[in-house]
Amino acid sequence: LTDVGLGEFGRIARFFAPLARSLPGAFGLTDDGAVLDLGPGRRLVVTTDALVAGVHFVGDEPAGDVARKALRVNLSDLAAMGAEPVAYSLVTALPTSVDDGWVAGFADGLAADQAEFGILLSGGDSVATPGPITISITAMGAVGEAWLSRSGARVDDLVCVSGTIGDGALGLDVLRGRLALDSVDAAFLVDRYRRPRPRHRLGPALVGVASACIDISDGLLADLGHLAQASGVGARVWVDRLPLSPAAAAARERMAAFVDTRALAGGDDYELLFTVDPANRDKVLAIARALEVAVTEIGKVVVGAGVRAVAGDGTDVTPLSTGWRHG
Amino acid sequence: LTDVGLGEFGRIARFFAPLARSLPGAFGLTDDGAVLDLGPGRRLVVTTDALVAGVHFVGDEPAGDVARKALRVNLSDLAAMGAEPVAYSLVTALPTSVDDGWVAGFADGLAADQAEFGILLSGGDSVATPGPITISITAMGAVGEAWLSRSGARVDDLVCVSGTIGDGALGLDVLRGRLALDSVDAAFLVDRYRRPRPRHRLGPALVGVASACIDISDGLLADLGHLAQASGVGARVWVDRLPLSPAAAAARERMAAFVDTRALAGGDDYELLFTVDPANRDKVLAIARALEVAVTEIGKVVVGAGVRAVAGDGTDVTPLSTGWRHG
Repeated sequence: LTDVGLGEFGRIARFFAPLARSLPGAFGLTDDGAVLDLGPGRRLVVTTDALVAGVHFVGDEPAGDVARKALRVNLSDLAAMGAEPVAYSLVTALPTSVDDGWVAGFADGLAADQAEFGILLSGGDSVATPGPITISITAMGAVGEAWLSRSGARVDDLVCVSGTIGDGALGLDVLRGRLALDSVDAAFLVDRYRRPRPRHRLGPALVGVASACIDISDGLLADLGHLAQASGVGARVWVDRLPLSPAAAAARERMAAFVDTRALAGGDDYELLFTVDPANRDKVLAIARALEVAVTEIGKVVVGAGVRAVAGDGTDVTPLSTGWRHG
Repeated sequence: LTDVGLGEFGRIARFFAPLARSLPGAFGLTDDGAVLDLGPGRRLVVTTDALVAGVHFVGDEPAGDVARKALRVNLSDLAAMGAEPVAYSLVTALPTSVDDGWVAGFADGLAADQAEFGILLSGGDSVATPGPITISITAMGAVGEAWLSRSGARVDDLVCVSGTIGDGALGLDVLRGRLALDSVDAAFLVDRYRRPRPRHRLGPALVGVASACIDISDGLLADLGHLAQASGVGARVWVDRLPLSPAAAAARERMAAFVDTRALAGGDDYELLFTVDPANRDKVLAIARALEVAVTEIGKVVVGAGVRAVAGDGTDVTPLSTGWRHG
């Protein structure tokens, strides 16, 4: 394997070591590992997600967007556990065709997100591959004595969701030429696909308030299904209540069924989907106001198993395929 | 992407969830992440290594050996920091040509090593790739108030190494047809290449005794160079003192210079290379005896910078290339 640029050690020193500078226990990425002190009474929360070019991202995105998506899907998992971000370990497996400029842009994207989400690089590995660009991140966060799980939902709890739903999947539709919209709406949706907004402040704020939580990566109904199964309950979602962005609402005026299916079964939203005892409704609203995050009540937890989407007239409108699977 | 076997969710449930069964905070790999309690006063040590088929391993090894190597190179990094193993996160990026039987063998290898080294699977990700098999592991360990770093070596410290040196690189030579030996010696060396022995008990025992430590992955002189640079010192290694296995010694009878170069500059030993104040020599010997690990004094720390290999007659025999780099 030849490399006419900085080489892997050079890239680590030049592009990645600065991302670890503020973390004393990362030792400038020069030791065998990092040492992290979570503080007294804190537990570690750890989550890992990998992205492969051509499978999890299109492949021609700006390098900084690839970096940010890789980091943000992990930050979204930390948020779903109610954990505050601490540090992350990064593996880049890059073909030799990837030049130092791409790596520089990749590191710039990470630097921007580190500042936005309060997380620092602790270490990782940088390897060559004859295959496609593959990025793997293990994100570490911290919680106290309590955190959010998928398994605490109880019958009659409210089902709530943050932000708007369906934008990520619709953004991918725009990129793949399956959906034509005016340029402002199209750009908004593509940005939502490429740069999901992990709810890193909402998640920790919901600890002790929400009864169960998951982030929406596979699709609203699929992930609600995971939560319901873990909790031993069923759930209903009212389609008329789904929060849509103005861009998704504009698309829905022409293609209502298509957009509803994307909102219910599309993936890549990275919003938080959580259940809450009705007695805690006001607490949730206060948290949403304080954090300036939209939270919408979209359904309820019921006795039994499985999830169903219900229209305003009571019709069952659950899509046959309720979620997607990446490769 | 088609999959006629268990699929990724099925593989996780069937092969990987059992590896997490004894770790309550892994939630059976069904939540967004794992929650780990290191205990009061414990710090997290985290390290990450990735292996790519065709770059870091030959590619036709038994699946269990690939798994064990991926885990062990990380365990070796934890040992070099003086950390006790706790848990690890696993990313498998597999081409669709890899069948469930391969994954079963891979998981069996992990299960055997979990029992041997006292570490449990906490989670991870399982993705498809159009590229080669790519395995990434982030290993987590724990230390108390103190740990081992690369930067504490002082002038006149002894340079010590565990086990025997050069076997891993010679094993790769055997596999690549560059070295012919009788079948017992050849099998021994190949096994050392495929299944490195992380010093998971020696590392933690050296905390407070060794002044600096690193594991040998790039090669003895290269890794001693990293340690010396981090400590702001130089080092000398006495070639006559290098501990060789019987198989390596047999090879040396015919090819002395070749074997010496492998011992000095080959990689993949995964032994611990550490420095120690001469006043602590007896403590090191007592630890080595108690743990039944060979420890050999092979050199000393000197004023200045850089590392040199010296023969019995005082000749400088430092190879021109002191270490190797994986792709």
